[in-house]
Amino acid sequence: MKIQTCVEHFNEPLYLESGRILESYDLKYETYGEMNEAKNNVIVVFHALTGSHHAAGRYENETKVGWWDPFIGDGRILDTSRYYVICVNVLSSCFGSTGPMSINAKTKEPLRLKFPVITISDMVRSQMNLFSRLGIKEAYAIIGGSMGGMQALCMAVEYPLFAKRVIMLASTYATGPWAIAFNKLAMEGIMHDPRFKNGNYDPKDFEEEGLLSFAIGRMAGHISFLSPHSMNKKFGRNYVETDGLYELFGRFQVEKYMEYNGHSFAKRFDPLSYLYIIKAMNIFDATRNYDSLEDSLKHIKAKLTLISFQGDILFLPEEMEVIKTTLDDMGRGDRVDYFCIDSHYGHDAFLVEYDKFDFYVKKALEAKV
Amino acid sequence: MKIQTCVEHFNEPLYLESGRILESYDLKYETYGEMNEAKNNVIVVFHALTGSHHAAGRYENETKVGWWDPFIGDGRILDTSRYYVICVNVLSSCFGSTGPMSINAKTKEPLRLKFPVITISDMVRSQMNLFSRLGIKEAYAIIGGSMGGMQALCMAVEYPLFAKRVIMLASTYATGPWAIAFNKLAMEGIMHDPRFKNGNYDPKDFEEEGLLSFAIGRMAGHISFLSPHSMNKKFGRNYVETDGLYELFGRFQVEKYMEYNGHSFAKRFDPLSYLYIIKAMNIFDATRNYDSLEDSLKHIKAKLTLISFQGDILFLPEEMEVIKTTLDDMGRGDRVDYFCIDSHYGHDAFLVEYDKFDFYVKKALEAKV
Repeated sequence: MKIQTCVEHFNEPLYLESGRILESYDLKYETYGEMNEAKNNVIVVFHALTGSHHAAGRYENETKVGWWDPFIGDGRILDTSRYYVICVNVLSSCFGSTGPMSINAKTKEPLRLKFPVITISDMVRSQMNLFSRLGIKEAYAIIGGSMGGMQALCMAVEYPLFAKRVIMLASTYATGPWAIAFNKLAMEGIMHDPRFKNGNYDPKDFEEEGLLSFAIGRMAGHISFLSPHSMNKKFGRNYVETDGLYELFGRFQVEKYMEYNGHSFAKRFDPLSYLYIIKAMNIFDATRNYDSLEDSLKHIKAKLTLISFQGDILFLPEEMEVIKTTLDDMGRGDRVDYFCIDSHYGHDAFLVEYDKFDFYVKKALEAKV
Repeated sequence: MKIQTCVEHFNEPLYLESGRILESYDLKYETYGEMNEAKNNVIVVFHALTGSHHAAGRYENETKVGWWDPFIGDGRILDTSRYYVICVNVLSSCFGSTGPMSINAKTKEPLRLKFPVITISDMVRSQMNLFSRLGIKEAYAIIGGSMGGMQALCMAVEYPLFAKRVIMLASTYATGPWAIAFNKLAMEGIMHDPRFKNGNYDPKDFEEEGLLSFAIGRMAGHISFLSPHSMNKKFGRNYVETDGLYELFGRFQVEKYMEYNGHSFAKRFDPLSYLYIIKAMNIFDATRNYDSLEDSLKHIKAKLTLISFQGDILFLPEEMEVIKTTLDDMGRGDRVDYFCIDSHYGHDAFLVEYDKFDFYVKKALEAKV
């Protein structure tokens, strides 16, 4: 499989949903496979909150593969011997596209809190500009989970002629207070950590140890990505060796798991990027510029495939199902498939239990449209 | 209704499950109504993690009533014109019973981390000593929700002749990794806050502002006490006025709710007490000293009533149901009733939706045993 990692610079301004303007910006992206001459074998993959353009393959000197690696490659579900897969790092990210820690060309300083709020719609618009520059006029399919699913839905509504097939996993049409509450913990953690300095931190300060309270917020995220059942299966009431105060107050394996994941994440993810991206998720509402969900969905021309996971406590299956029932009620039931996958993995299932949902993605990709 | 608040001092040592000894201790408790001459109209109420002996009535100069006030009183479900209701503050608490901030008689200093780990079984044993001193040889009923339910179950197993009727709400027979994970957030928050000083803080430091990261942990608790449905109903995607960084990153009503509850709690609850009490909850396992759940439950002689709430994400209904099915399988089905209440309030339902479960408590109290 041919992998290319690129950065594209845009000098033309991006008019944001907030009314503000991003004068210029970079988008980092990665591609897998090769675009055919007709440029009609493109599959766009959207990444989630903490993901990046690096969806598959392994970089030199790294042990980890891309976040959806088992899914993308020659002979895999997103078969790179047939499709040209592209994944764009979202605006606001800390992994290469323009974000709050990008340098302001005039002041030579990071933008920090002067960076504008980026919405899911803005992310999608910037990506459409990239596709336009790459000569991609239409996508064979677009697909994403969690925040990636929000981008897929948003693109299907706002650019109805672009994608023939839209696949949305473990996501929602409007972020509910429950998910906002989980994000809140990280937000509080970041904002109240003295080392955050109201956003005026030096990123180098976090190389050895990330923001401690950010880590706590992230641990909360790890609760929301799992489920009571997956935790029972994964950890049960198993004990581990601990020391210091942990010896007195904590000794469960699940606690160790949270510590490890929370603290390692806080070292590698920029806190301002995190704040901007959860803001984008929190305010995502596919009905915002429309009278109703129906009024929003009526723009969709693609074949829509919705895949939710039983036990996803972050974005409940019923939040996806309502998209299906709304389209059904509109007499558009033929344009939408809804599958609720029996999984105890919770929200994380779309990153883990490939064998539970690959059949449905394959079906969606093979659908005649 | 006659209310009395008392403290009883015990000079005889309490032999703890850990092997350590509490040389002497105080138990603070509150009573409602009057004990009859036969001393057989006693209902023991157990409080939850952040509760106290103050279960009903209103103190002078306070606006809030006790935590189960609508449930306890003349003519109420726990009818104080008939029953003598008693609620004991648990060991480890910061509301009057001996806990980590109690003064060591010899050193005249707070015990802090020298305070021994107290288990649910230890809490129950200390309370049995109190009842013994008060001449209470048996209880008409014992009842508790959440950690209170753990105490009720523990008492039913370990003192099978004491209570005739045992009512357990929104609880579990062994704390699962899911609940431990939520507790972990508060534990991390407390332990890593620089103002915690490894437990060597001055409580006066928190009068104006509690530990910020403790507040975050508590906000996480407030997520676990609700449910996606109750949050949708309570907050939806409503906005509120905000300022400062919140204006940029947060503006949802649910966020405001979490801030308010988290920060006000961190001011009024002692962080070491919190650590000790969540430790007791985390390690609670009614099967620990037995071969199996069956082996534990076989000791119970009381009539057991289990009330769980659909949508309780902290202690899932199925965790309670397994107590019922185990007793059924043992041929003891006549000794247990299980009700799963249809509620969108989640775990908090036992403190809120009285009208949804009062019927079942009444039924349990009227049961011939």
